[in-house]
Amino acid sequence: MRRWVLLCCWFSVGLSVNAQVTYQNLKKANPHNWLAYSGSYTSQRYSLLNQIDVGNVQRLVPAWIFHAQKEEKLECVPIVVNGVMYVTQEAGVVYALDAQTGRLIWSYHYPPIPPGENRGSNRGVAVYGNRVYFTTQDAFLVALDARTGNFLWRSKIAEAKEGYWAPAAPLALNGKIITGVAPGDYGMIGVIVAFDATTGKQLWRWSAVPKPGQPGNDTWAGDSWKQGGGDTWLTGSYDPELNLIYWGIGNPAPDFNGDVRKGDNLYTDCMVALDADTGKLKWYFQFTPHDTADWDAVEIPVLVDRAFDGGMRKLLVQADRNGFYYVLDRTNGKFLHGTPFVRELNWASGLTKEGRPIRIPGVEASLEGTKVCPSVDGATNWMSPAYSPETGYFYLEALEGCQLQLKASQTFRPGGYPYDATGVMEVPNAPLQTYVRALDLTTGKLQWEYKLIGAREYGAGVLSTAGGLLFAGSPQGSFIAFNAKTGKVLWHFNTGQGISASPMTYSFRNKQYVTVAAGSDVMAFRLFEASQ
Amino acid sequence: MRRWVLLCCWFSVGLSVNAQVTYQNLKKANPHNWLAYSGSYTSQRYSLLNQIDVGNVQRLVPAWIFHAQKEEKLECVPIVVNGVMYVTQEAGVVYALDAQTGRLIWSYHYPPIPPGENRGSNRGVAVYGNRVYFTTQDAFLVALDARTGNFLWRSKIAEAKEGYWAPAAPLALNGKIITGVAPGDYGMIGVIVAFDATTGKQLWRWSAVPKPGQPGNDTWAGDSWKQGGGDTWLTGSYDPELNLIYWGIGNPAPDFNGDVRKGDNLYTDCMVALDADTGKLKWYFQFTPHDTADWDAVEIPVLVDRAFDGGMRKLLVQADRNGFYYVLDRTNGKFLHGTPFVRELNWASGLTKEGRPIRIPGVEASLEGTKVCPSVDGATNWMSPAYSPETGYFYLEALEGCQLQLKASQTFRPGGYPYDATGVMEVPNAPLQTYVRALDLTTGKLQWEYKLIGAREYGAGVLSTAGGLLFAGSPQGSFIAFNAKTGKVLWHFNTGQGISASPMTYSFRNKQYVTVAAGSDVMAFRLFEASQ
Repeated sequence: MRRWVLLCCWFSVGLSVNAQVTYQNLKKANPHNWLAYSGSYTSQRYSLLNQIDVGNVQRLVPAWIFHAQKEEKLECVPIVVNGVMYVTQEAGVVYALDAQTGRLIWSYHYPPIPPGENRGSNRGVAVYGNRVYFTTQDAFLVALDARTGNFLWRSKIAEAKEGYWAPAAPLALNGKIITGVAPGDYGMIGVIVAFDATTGKQLWRWSAVPKPGQPGNDTWAGDSWKQGGGDTWLTGSYDPELNLIYWGIGNPAPDFNGDVRKGDNLYTDCMVALDADTGKLKWYFQFTPHDTADWDAVEIPVLVDRAFDGGMRKLLVQADRNGFYYVLDRTNGKFLHGTPFVRELNWASGLTKEGRPIRIPGVEASLEGTKVCPSVDGATNWMSPAYSPETGYFYLEALEGCQLQLKASQTFRPGGYPYDATGVMEVPNAPLQTYVRALDLTTGKLQWEYKLIGAREYGAGVLSTAGGLLFAGSPQGSFIAFNAKTGKVLWHFNTGQGISASPMTYSFRNKQYVTVAAGSDVMAFRLFEASQ
Repeated sequence: MRRWVLLCCWFSVGLSVNAQVTYQNLKKANPHNWLAYSGSYTSQRYSLLNQIDVGNVQRLVPAWIFHAQKEEKLECVPIVVNGVMYVTQEAGVVYALDAQTGRLIWSYHYPPIPPGENRGSNRGVAVYGNRVYFTTQDAFLVALDARTGNFLWRSKIAEAKEGYWAPAAPLALNGKIITGVAPGDYGMIGVIVAFDATTGKQLWRWSAVPKPGQPGNDTWAGDSWKQGGGDTWLTGSYDPELNLIYWGIGNPAPDFNGDVRKGDNLYTDCMVALDADTGKLKWYFQFTPHDTADWDAVEIPVLVDRAFDGGMRKLLVQADRNGFYYVLDRTNGKFLHGTPFVRELNWASGLTKEGRPIRIPGVEASLEGTKVCPSVDGATNWMSPAYSPETGYFYLEALEGCQLQLKASQTFRPGGYPYDATGVMEVPNAPLQTYVRALDLTTGKLQWEYKLIGAREYGAGVLSTAGGLLFAGSPQGSFIAFNAKTGKVLWHFNTGQGISASPMTYSFRNKQYVTVAAGSDVMAFRLFEASQ
């Protein structure tokens, strides 16, 4: 039966499975495709497609549903190339689907990870040339033939036996595939690694924690750099003109006990700019020096060219897990502006003119437990933000709330599920609350917000379109379209499952689709027409 | 979060959770509700709702999705009472949903069955008065308060320790709740049991295999009746005028070795008519005497009052797992007509004028293996058929195919997963194939058919409506609307999961919905309107 289904669908799609994604395509994407995790190198998650707009979005209906083989919360962003959609599942499964019907074209199953070693999400593929790339739970980069799903090669990103794994969608650019690792929480040092897109050969490797003798090592007391952390578990952005990649770095380890790693702990909780050809550090900006609250700074950096303080600037903006929204100059990492984007923020009274937080003494993890806001989940997290050049707004899902943070002992053991999380934190009476928010890009000022039902466990990214729309998902399963300017809810659909992924859009045969992974389903929506 | 969701939905539905289903309601159902497993006592699965029709069905779109908590193939038929939908999951979970939005009103979790004792499907609830009834994996009938999901009482149908369990949706009538058991395959004798709807007290109990001294016991050689089988695992039909219930009885045990149970093996593979007040056998008709192919006769009996041979007759029709379609007089069980409804049928050359199969010698399970058609899955199975008084057609999903059947030794052990299935059968090269078929009700002659993609693992029932439509689901996940007269496909939707349940329809606030459980989702569809 399975063979028959495959054959049927293969023929229905024909030769369009030939991907042929070039660097030129990636630099200036055809809006009919969705070629990168964050839509494009700028990570604006803004689509020029406008068939679906504020006037007709109420006609949006489900076109098809694809159900992943295992009951897993999908967190991937689908990649679409000429009518073929690629999605991933955490257990190392990649599916190629007919983007018009949801039918399976091929599936690839990475050899099963040993029981108990399943470490969580996979956020999707990169496509370059005729190859599909994804990362694995044992920290490999795998290349498949995009037309058949056949295995081509795999390259080790980092050593799984030491505790590494890899959840991010890779970044493809100019003959290279670049990706990172998890989990710094377990005392592993994060890396960003570039591979040759054709051969899989490692081209360069950058470590998120400097060794003795290297600049920045002096921000780690004693030998604490050795288990320094600094995850690199989300996908970075890229400026082809500057040839710089921008990547957010995770928190230091151990998470909640800063006593054993005195200092600023570079380059944890930083945004780093690396030369795409060499991996050399061009600049860094640290959001949370000496973090004791697990506030990874991996949140997607959004690149915008825009007037700022009287002149056109190449900006990089980030809503950080620590609760502040930052505007940087992405040519040099200079701090331009910062402001809180959540109301519940008690650990810093503001930012210095260099962008360094002004800490409020005593508001950090303690032996007795201290109320710290934002919570350990952060004011936002891996859910993708978006920017619309039409409204000039930056959009995100923000999480309001606090937690008791306890300074716990943490013991790291190579290769195992590592840290002693017991008593690290407790949830107080006040529940966390998720909002969809629109901020003015340059000032960070709140323009509108929408309170979602449900908070923890899930968090969905957002998508803006030239149709004047913002799409967002709720922890409770509603997929919602807003007027991007006003925040008015124009449409919603009950998908039945909590949404933990970021929506995307594409078009095929003159029809625009909006897609989101909801629970274990990928759902595609398009405008109603009777002859569907 | 969960509490909040519950509160939100409770208020949105208000007092409509008050079920108030009376015997009068059940006898003459308001078409806005769907009050019984098979839609009504006649089991015609024909709805008078016609808002969705052959002219507008192309405007059908998903209205909402409800996702069951565990990744289980749902086989239940939703029951809808005044805008509240009740669905079940195999592990003993009952959900009350807002039928307009799919939001959860309440859920009830039957105490977990010990690991390894999960025995499969649950096919839904019955609602009577203000109570919701369902059966359990440890063979109890459970009553809940329909308004709150609170547990009221449970009554033992049969002894789980002996190996019994109960998957069927109960049948509610005139103060009684009637249901059956599984699994006769394991050497347990089937029973049909009636309980007082208010108190749960057992009213009567009918055994599918007669004891020594009772009529029919002489159809079992020696002591073979003791492990006779005769499942009662689907829901019967009812004629209030005759006050007879009609119930299909499962196969004899052991399934494939008839040598140890010579004789016709009554009442296995029979249709039986029981007095609803006393459980006394009024008549029986045996489809497959001395069955050695696992051809349970539990398939839903459909009751139709219609002209036959010149006069109005109270008919009972059944498409049997053995491959023949039967027309009986339901007042007395007299065989009126029979004909094959599958092409692959090699075990009998026809039926005698009494309806007894004329066996072809040698075409039965043997030590070496014998090709027998239909397969062990039968020419049809538990997927519900339908009848439309408009077209005069009987509709079903039929399975074409053969298998090698091996006469295996089977050892029964009380309470355990019992029979030695090793080598019982093997699948030959020819794959099984599922079709949607329309038969003339009185002649059984094929009117149209539609070949579905996929065959095994799944099978979906059908639904006919006054809109001139037939709805059917495919093993591969398509939900399809046909012109009931011509068999033309008018609409379809890719649900993403194989459909193993029967569709149903209801209306609420002047909108007709069509619903089907697809995989682990319940999906509701309605006509598109922009302001949804």
